[in-house]
Amino acid sequence: MNERQTVADIGEFGLIERFAARLGAPPEGETWAGDDAAVLRAPGSTLLYTTDLLIEAIDFDLGYASGADIGWKALAVNLSDIAAMGGRARHAVVGLGLSADCPLETADGILDGLLAAASRWDVQVVGGDISSASAAVLYVALIGVAEGRPVLRSGARPGDAICVTGALGGAAGGLALLRGGAPLGAPAHRRLVARQLRPEARLAEGGRLAALGATAMIDVSDGLIGDLIHLLDASDLGCSVVPEAVPIDRDLIPLAEVLDPFEAALTGGEDFELVFTLPADTVQRARASLAELGTPVTRIGATQQGSRRLLGDMPLGAGGGAGWDHLRTR
Amino acid sequence: MNERQTVADIGEFGLIERFAARLGAPPEGETWAGDDAAVLRAPGSTLLYTTDLLIEAIDFDLGYASGADIGWKALAVNLSDIAAMGGRARHAVVGLGLSADCPLETADGILDGLLAAASRWDVQVVGGDISSASAAVLYVALIGVAEGRPVLRSGARPGDAICVTGALGGAAGGLALLRGGAPLGAPAHRRLVARQLRPEARLAEGGRLAALGATAMIDVSDGLIGDLIHLLDASDLGCSVVPEAVPIDRDLIPLAEVLDPFEAALTGGEDFELVFTLPADTVQRARASLAELGTPVTRIGATQQGSRRLLGDMPLGAGGGAGWDHLRTR
Repeated sequence: MNERQTVADIGEFGLIERFAARLGAPPEGETWAGDDAAVLRAPGSTLLYTTDLLIEAIDFDLGYASGADIGWKALAVNLSDIAAMGGRARHAVVGLGLSADCPLETADGILDGLLAAASRWDVQVVGGDISSASAAVLYVALIGVAEGRPVLRSGARPGDAICVTGALGGAAGGLALLRGGAPLGAPAHRRLVARQLRPEARLAEGGRLAALGATAMIDVSDGLIGDLIHLLDASDLGCSVVPEAVPIDRDLIPLAEVLDPFEAALTGGEDFELVFTLPADTVQRARASLAELGTPVTRIGATQQGSRRLLGDMPLGAGGGAGWDHLRTR
Repeated sequence: MNERQTVADIGEFGLIERFAARLGAPPEGETWAGDDAAVLRAPGSTLLYTTDLLIEAIDFDLGYASGADIGWKALAVNLSDIAAMGGRARHAVVGLGLSADCPLETADGILDGLLAAASRWDVQVVGGDISSASAAVLYVALIGVAEGRPVLRSGARPGDAICVTGALGGAAGGLALLRGGAPLGAPAHRRLVARQLRPEARLAEGGRLAALGATAMIDVSDGLIGDLIHLLDASDLGCSVVPEAVPIDRDLIPLAEVLDPFEAALTGGEDFELVFTLPADTVQRARASLAELGTPVTRIGATQQGSRRLLGDMPLGAGGGAGWDHLRTR
């Protein structure tokens, strides 16, 4: 009957012990789970600090995402924030709200996914909290370190090139496939679903771009246009973006009848690519450096003085591209 | 119609802007809300890191707690964890899940309460995340600093005195009053309700106890017995506790017909007093030092080698005193 065990069978403290036992041994001088707070050696002189909250039926759906998918993604979206500062990620705490009848397998899966992502990006999960909840809730708060100057959203200068890593729209394509219940046999379909369920954080890329002198950077969580607007607002600049230059995930092409690939690339969220600005004469070096990581860099436009923001001939954001908003219902 | 505004009227980004504008200006070299991560100067060589999650209908009830009560408590319970390490609290991030029809007044109230507690204990709220949720969700992740050696749960030695700050059971009394819907006119009732809704974190006390050589410490969140057992488990010790010595909140006496004051003091959670161990010859100095803060220190027993844990003649924890468990239903 082991597969029928729920979290109520072992209780909050049982679950905490079960999880804490898997966090590994802290280095000399540190204490992780099992006390009132984790004790950590400060990772450097400048801390980066971020958090993201995922809620069942809003940010994930246990109908198509496994516990491990959710755990992976909860850490990856936070890592992406540290990547967008050009930093290194170090220590995470995790909060988990579960209903008492949640299968223990799901709870274990969430930790599996968290620890898999932690191992992938060399992060330590050092503690957390567990509560009961009617809908599942998962959050991560993550401490990172900036080795040089952190890359803010506000540092872009007029005439900087606007570039993006990788290709866009894939996560939205994966979500459409999962929601549509389409069979996922085709490799292109599986890649799109992986972009939605198992996002990659561009940490190595962000670190290299910071070192190369990126002037501003943000990750694509709400959608390219929405996030670019955040960056431009923070830098108080306009822009001119070349629509044809926007890198569209090629796996979207076979889906064109159900999802406009260009629209998905512009407004689909959760690709967790990096949008960044840098002096135009540095683009080639950035491209060469990230090519070593297997990550393309595409120049999609340039910033400009003033408030004009154009996508080709159209005002940027016209037609609803302002990105995902969790709370707006009208 | 302003009092009818909901969070959907201003949306996630409107709410983020509204909140970020109230966080105050960061010091030179720091960046708080408004970027991918907060940028902070590292507060010292040893970090303390903790988080606590509060969920509507489990950890709070908007039927009797205001938004400001919930915001205050969410920060205070995390501060209490830093207090129990003997540390100073520094930087918090906050996550908030709200339904789209949540009154804007409640959302604003939550931030009011968070900032009131932040101001009270000199903590900076530096960022966060907002999502939509069917039941309200609020968490805080808090970075602190240990100025000396952090006081772990595991450091108690055989023969140490076991002491507790303040008086116990008041928060449970307040909860019983709130749930029972009793009129709250009497000063004793109002004090009990304040213990439940607006807990104080014993940060100054924790810092002094650490400096005085407390060997182990924990805060009373699950109940005296449950939390003392956590400390003894971590230190691998037994104990002998004198029942008559346990300091009972005197405001509970008039409630004795509906709530056993002694039981409430032993097993009521959320008093956020500190339970600590220290060499027996240091108790008087601890008492004198905390008297300067207006906080009593009561010696309730002593640790001992081995696994025997006694409350008077009874095994400690017999009769269900093992404390609150969020997930156990049977």
